[in-house]
Amino acid sequence: MSDNLSLAHLARVLGAELRLAPGVDSRYEISGLSTLQDAGASHLAFLASAAYRRFLKNTAAGAVLVTEEFADDCPVSVLCVENPYLAFARATALFNSAPQAEVGIHPSAAVHPDAEIASSASVAAGAVVERYAKIGPNVSLGANCFVGEGAIIGAGSCLHAGAVVHHRCSLGRDCIIHSQAVIGADGFGFAHHQQEWIKIYQLGGVNIGDDVEIGANTCVDRGALGDTIIGSGVKIDNLVQIAHNVKIGDYTAIAACSGIAGSAVIGKHCALAGCSRIAGHVTIADGCTVTADTFVTKSIDSPGSYSGALPFSDSPTWRRNAVRFGRLDKMAKRLKDLEKQLEALSRHIDGEG
Amino acid sequence: MSDNLSLAHLARVLGAELRLAPGVDSRYEISGLSTLQDAGASHLAFLASAAYRRFLKNTAAGAVLVTEEFADDCPVSVLCVENPYLAFARATALFNSAPQAEVGIHPSAAVHPDAEIASSASVAAGAVVERYAKIGPNVSLGANCFVGEGAIIGAGSCLHAGAVVHHRCSLGRDCIIHSQAVIGADGFGFAHHQQEWIKIYQLGGVNIGDDVEIGANTCVDRGALGDTIIGSGVKIDNLVQIAHNVKIGDYTAIAACSGIAGSAVIGKHCALAGCSRIAGHVTIADGCTVTADTFVTKSIDSPGSYSGALPFSDSPTWRRNAVRFGRLDKMAKRLKDLEKQLEALSRHIDGEG
Amino acid sequence: MSDNLSLAHLARVLGAELRLAPGVDSRYEISGLSTLQDAGASHLAFLASAAYRRFLKNTAAGAVLVTEEFADDCPVSVLCVENPYLAFARATALFNSAPQAEVGIHPSAAVHPDAEIASSASVAAGAVVERYAKIGPNVSLGANCFVGEGAIIGAGSCLHAGAVVHHRCSLGRDCIIHSQAVIGADGFGFAHHQQEWIKIYQLGGVNIGDDVEIGANTCVDRGALGDTIIGSGVKIDNLVQIAHNVKIGDYTAIAACSGIAGSAVIGKHCALAGCSRIAGHVTIADGCTVTADTFVTKSIDSPGSYSGALPFSDSPTWRRNAVRFGRLDKMAKRLKDLEKQLEALSRHIDGEG
Repeated sequence: MSDNLSLAHLARVLGAELRLAPGVDSRYEISGLSTLQDAGASHLAFLASAAYRRFLKNTAAGAVLVTEEFADDCPVSVLCVENPYLAFARATALFNSAPQAEVGIHPSAAVHPDAEIASSASVAAGAVVERYAKIGPNVSLGANCFVGEGAIIGAGSCLHAGAVVHHRCSLGRDCIIHSQAVIGADGFGFAHHQQEWIKIYQLGGVNIGDDVEIGANTCVDRGALGDTIIGSGVKIDNLVQIAHNVKIGDYTAIAACSGIAGSAVIGKHCALAGCSRIAGHVTIADGCTVTADTFVTKSIDSPGSYSGALPFSDSPTWRRNAVRFGRLDKMAKRLKDLEKQLEALSRHIDGEG
Repeated sequence: MSDNLSLAHLARVLGAELRLAPGVDSRYEISGLSTLQDAGASHLAFLASAAYRRFLKNTAAGAVLVTEEFADDCPVSVLCVENPYLAFARATALFNSAPQAEVGIHPSAAVHPDAEIASSASVAAGAVVERYAKIGPNVSLGANCFVGEGAIIGAGSCLHAGAVVHHRCSLGRDCIIHSQAVIGADGFGFAHHQQEWIKIYQLGGVNIGDDVEIGANTCVDRGALGDTIIGSGVKIDNLVQIAHNVKIGDYTAIAACSGIAGSAVIGKHCALAGCSRIAGHVTIADGCTVTADTFVTKSIDSPGSYSGALPFSDSPTWRRNAVRFGRLDKMAKRLKDLEKQLEALSRHIDGEG
Repeated sequence: MSDNLSLAHLARVLGAELRLAPGVDSRYEISGLSTLQDAGASHLAFLASAAYRRFLKNTAAGAVLVTEEFADDCPVSVLCVENPYLAFARATALFNSAPQAEVGIHPSAAVHPDAEIASSASVAAGAVVERYAKIGPNVSLGANCFVGEGAIIGAGSCLHAGAVVHHRCSLGRDCIIHSQAVIGADGFGFAHHQQEWIKIYQLGGVNIGDDVEIGANTCVDRGALGDTIIGSGVKIDNLVQIAHNVKIGDYTAIAACSGIAGSAVIGKHCALAGCSRIAGHVTIADGCTVTADTFVTKSIDSPGSYSGALPFSDSPTWRRNAVRFGRLDKMAKRLKDLEKQLEALSRHIDGEG
């Protein structure tokens, strides 16, 4: 990790065809990744979209990930691939220099004697692991994390500093839970009685699949009776609310500041852009895209793109339009009246004519 | 807790009339709660809404909480009550098997010698309690919680792992503060001076009543001069922002992702649905409902339901309508013109006629 | 701090002209700040807006910060200043009685031997500081904070309880990071491949200037390649999402619950009100104001005020208007038709006439 890598090595690992620029050796070393515009001679850059093509001819990169189509336009060595963005993603793993957790339990961690910690796991300073919790092989629990009683953290998963997984919640393999995310807090459930709220204790848990990433300060509440379920391959950004008994299908992605209300069911392979809001108990079909800042108030039966955000404008223009919105129903009625009057007038004239 | 309970015991505790199915004994044991659809023979289910009535006749539950009205339709034993949802809520407390905190101070907690900790309180691993803080009887402070100098945590209250209550903030009795909630961070106050922001130190605190629940990753800021005030019985969901000097009346509920700006005053017995946004300094009367995703920009004087969210649609349809919105003021003017022209034309024809 | 201060001292420190009420001595002591309405005889109040002028004549304050214009209307001693709100802000610093951190490293903190901690810094209980981190002079790290490998915390900065600053992120001087804020979690970046999401490791960092304040539970993600950049003097409220590679210009303020998507560039001296949403890759000019609950979907080239929130109404009225919105494009077409018909009719009549 984070050492220099030769072009030959990169080509092999990324499945790329290496086309060396004149005078360049396949042992030429790359130290990191950059954009076409910012790259220096030791950087690998990438061209993933035709929109950036104009930066290709002047790039100072050591080499560029490109498709066959643009390979000849590249003034430097080329790593020719089918999908440069995918190859770039894979290259980020090669150059990732994030600190690796040390295997073992830090002396200031508080691990209950009845918790099971794999010998290859890492438990950082201040982490707290309650009894009957199971921490799998190669798991990394960051500083001041909390894993509640009976919770299960699957092999290879990582909880960043401050992440919380409450009792009897389970994560599959290779999950990443970012800092201050809270898995398994109580769902928001109360019965109304004589104008007071009587708590419905949340008896379910949270069941998270494999290869799930959950962002910083995101909440996934435990179910009221059954579990809240997050499918495998799901990616959730920061500051997202997933309420109790929500089900999210495999490989769905949810961008930041979104909120999914209780018992909503989101299909597989959906993409919810930032600030999406999904009402309680609705169902969203597989393969749906919800564009940013859309409030989905009812179920969606078929795949497609759905929207609900208004375009902004300068404040004076906005105010004029917004005021009209408040009279839209009246405008519609006036329009209807006009249509009738005009029709009557036309008939009258025709009658005359 | 979480042991099996007999039907006779449940009937007594829930104030229900027990009507046993043929061959069933009142010592019949229930191990947990479930829905009508999912329940097995050891579960207690409930029918709280006529919408679920269709599931009643085929339920495999051991017993069902129902009203008199539906009791005869139930194929299994019945716990007959006036309000099944309320009885269900109470039953969740009976079957709640969340881990109970151990009384005492964990050796890895850092409790200042000048803090007062009731002997029946529990202070978990990694919790930090500053001087002059008062931790009441039967309080539970979760792992890695923080209670600042002079803060007061009332009897029976629970801070879940990672919750933070800053200096001189106070909680009443039986409050629940979920993980990563922050009570008493600085309100957002600055004076503008020569294009820079001069901090207004936030000298007030946060005053929280009895029986209040505050969700994970929710913020309740301290007041600038006086306190931010949360009345008794208030329930606040996850990821909610309560700004400085807000006042929230007793028994008001606020769902996730809502934000209340500074000095807003929310009445008693209000219900703010998810993603509600309340502007600064507005006042909302007792008994108001704000539906999901509504931005309340001015004060509301009388109880009722208030809304502000647009219905979404498929993206092409949405775009067509959204573009028109940007010309709504012009449309209104064209409509007005048409009305005038039509009136003139009518007069002209009448004059002719 | 938090001791009583004489009027003479306050006048000197705040640069005010002291005008004593009859019989009052310049040694008269002030114990704290309050509003004109709530102030008692030991309080200093302020009149910062003509809207509150009506409270001046009956104030029971010990003294009032006012401009020359209103000084004669004040029944008590006056501290006459050009900008009373600014003087009030400065006075809050004088009366701030927030607990001061003790210099030194708490025994329960976990500081890596290869971290550099200034001798004047304070590291509270449960804080974790990783290797190569640099903690500057007079820095205060609150309880259970986390500072990652190689992170830099500039002189005089304060991390409140539970704040997280990940590896290789840097803060300038005199920054305040509130509880549970997360600086440097991974940006949300994935390449789509065969319907799965391949993680793009986030190789950049977060670079924060001087005198920046970041609110509780706010997230500032690390960059994908380069850094996410927060300029000096920037103030960010609670529960705000700042995505990877965002750049925020100096002295810009962002209120709570806002979200800035990836690679957006916000100018200097901007003010984004609560619940602002900025789309990815857009650029906002210096000096822009975005009013509350506005979604900025495209770049803004010139300073000014921009809006996008609809006014709410009672639910029945709202529903009628919202339904019409869903037919707005059709309404526009009907309006166009009417215009054509009316024109044709007019021509017809003129032809007749």
